[in-house]
Amino acid sequence: MLIDIALDAVGSDQAPGPEIRGAIEACRKLPVRVHLVGPEAELRAMLKKRHLPADFPIVVHHASERIGMEEKAAIAVRTKRDSSMRVGLKLVREKTVAGFVTAGNTGAAMATAKMVLGMLPGVDRPALATALPSSGESPCILLDVGANVDCKPHNLEQFAVMGELYSRNVLKIAKPRVGLLSIGEEETKGNDLTRESFALLRALPLNFIGNVEGRDLFNGHADVIVCDGFVGNVALKASEGLAKLVRSELRQAMGSNPLYMLGAFLSKGAFNNFRKRLDYTEYGGAPLLGLRGACIIGHGSSNARAIYNGIRVAAEFAQSGISQEMKDALTPPATPANSDGNTTVPAL
Amino acid sequence: MLIDIALDAVGSDQAPGPEIRGAIEACRKLPVRVHLVGPEAELRAMLKKRHLPADFPIVVHHASERIGMEEKAAIAVRTKRDSSMRVGLKLVREKTVAGFVTAGNTGAAMATAKMVLGMLPGVDRPALATALPSSGESPCILLDVGANVDCKPHNLEQFAVMGELYSRNVLKIAKPRVGLLSIGEEETKGNDLTRESFALLRALPLNFIGNVEGRDLFNGHADVIVCDGFVGNVALKASEGLAKLVRSELRQAMGSNPLYMLGAFLSKGAFNNFRKRLDYTEYGGAPLLGLRGACIIGHGSSNARAIYNGIRVAAEFAQSGISQEMKDALTPPATPANSDGNTTVPAL
Repeated sequence: MLIDIALDAVGSDQAPGPEIRGAIEACRKLPVRVHLVGPEAELRAMLKKRHLPADFPIVVHHASERIGMEEKAAIAVRTKRDSSMRVGLKLVREKTVAGFVTAGNTGAAMATAKMVLGMLPGVDRPALATALPSSGESPCILLDVGANVDCKPHNLEQFAVMGELYSRNVLKIAKPRVGLLSIGEEETKGNDLTRESFALLRALPLNFIGNVEGRDLFNGHADVIVCDGFVGNVALKASEGLAKLVRSELRQAMGSNPLYMLGAFLSKGAFNNFRKRLDYTEYGGAPLLGLRGACIIGHGSSNARAIYNGIRVAAEFAQSGISQEMKDALTPPATPANSDGNTTVPAL
Repeated sequence: MLIDIALDAVGSDQAPGPEIRGAIEACRKLPVRVHLVGPEAELRAMLKKRHLPADFPIVVHHASERIGMEEKAAIAVRTKRDSSMRVGLKLVREKTVAGFVTAGNTGAAMATAKMVLGMLPGVDRPALATALPSSGESPCILLDVGANVDCKPHNLEQFAVMGELYSRNVLKIAKPRVGLLSIGEEETKGNDLTRESFALLRALPLNFIGNVEGRDLFNGHADVIVCDGFVGNVALKASEGLAKLVRSELRQAMGSNPLYMLGAFLSKGAFNNFRKRLDYTEYGGAPLLGLRGACIIGHGSSNARAIYNGIRVAAEFAQSGISQEMKDALTPPATPANSDGNTTVPAL
């Protein structure tokens, strides 16, 4: 039985090349059927060149419009009614597919997903989560990394619940350690938001380890780290910026003399292993948590490997039953589920 | 003519070893006289073992108390009246020395410096600034990285003025590009604080380049980046955490097979150059800006090289005349300077 996943074929900067190659790799290695969403004639022509078997599990859905990377999310969502994002997310809503993956405009993807899928009851705001490499055995989940700029304590409380469920159900961590991102370990350290959130997180039925610091994003001390979307986005992008600097400095240092170049050639395999450990493309994009359905948002610079991993994560997400668990965890038990899910403060 | 710099001899985790070695190196290479502050008998005994010439420019000032890394700043400052930090900063206040360097407890150093030196007129809060490695030619100054947790727009405005003066006077950047750390380039992107601060920064008589993102900390797009102390501290520590992970992963990858080890041996010089480019010890600690005097705060894990660079930066800071420039830039021209400097909102 194949898991159906919709893929925005015109999301990434180099689209649709990485999407088509990533989809083919996913169909070969994973129990998935990929629904490519985009300009049908162009996509069919590109697939034809690949000489795939007749029963190869890729199908194409037409979408006439593409949302560009520089477009304003609010306007694009309103005006482009036949965008690949909207068509793909509708496939999730009508249960044709179990999840949606895009490497396109993050803001537009978040806005479209909120509009088309809607939020789970009890969720005030969805959160964009990302998996970071760590010296521990499994990646650390950081959320929110940009969906919500100014947050209230109850938002961080919901992010903690959602992140913990993601770590447990999708990453299979038995008892995820949940930390609150701050600037000191003591409860009293931090800003107004973290100090107020601390008590809420401590009262949750999960393994809350208290405040953690920026360095804990990468040292395996926590499995889930919660913060507002401004701080999370700055921390994530600063880390990406430093990783890029490290790569370019290392390349420059190694190329500066023939002996170093020989050494680098001999150690090539080690460099590749090193790169792979730190490479975001291995982590499969950022899941948008709190929606009625699985939506994974990748980097604009995604290559085929990143797309493949996005599809893998979407399939794992869909299979995990995490949406039902979130609904159960975040819906106040005493009152019936609020069907718009937008204004309920969870009674956790 | 030597520049007199006071050095907390019992600041770093490994003190006083790194302090003594760093001070000796500084006295050999720089036009400085170092005033070691700490337990006099112990320091004299250690210096004696070095067989320095009689006229070697190191002097010792006795301080009977040491503030530990885990001590609460507020309590330590109040109770340890003969701490090495307090004695060293008093030497600055009474103009025996031109600046003070410590690798001790950051919170205690900031609190002691505020108390002993006082703030420049027009400065509401001092800011801790740090120099980050970048792919550009000179380091990028990030401030505040932890002195002020919840900031108001006028605090960020003052940080911009102080950071720009530091970049221009100490790092000798002719026309520093000043950016506001946010999560999108457009003026409307960001949180409440950055959106309100944007207009204030744009009105300043300096080269404001608008919002920058986390990745811009390391790509040379800006010379000075302004943010509140919570965000700056998280970004800095996340970057330090990632750098540590990179080093350990690279070491592990290189050690995993004899061929890689040979390659790494041949490329050793390149690795050293690479490390040096990214090594915080080359950047000489974090200046605390906005005080009546130069105070440089280093990492607890500082080695002798980091101490040496801290002394170098303190001397450059003291020589630059930046304190006078800050006073001129931040004092409202129409009213007389407010001598406590604590509550004046600058009319920039």
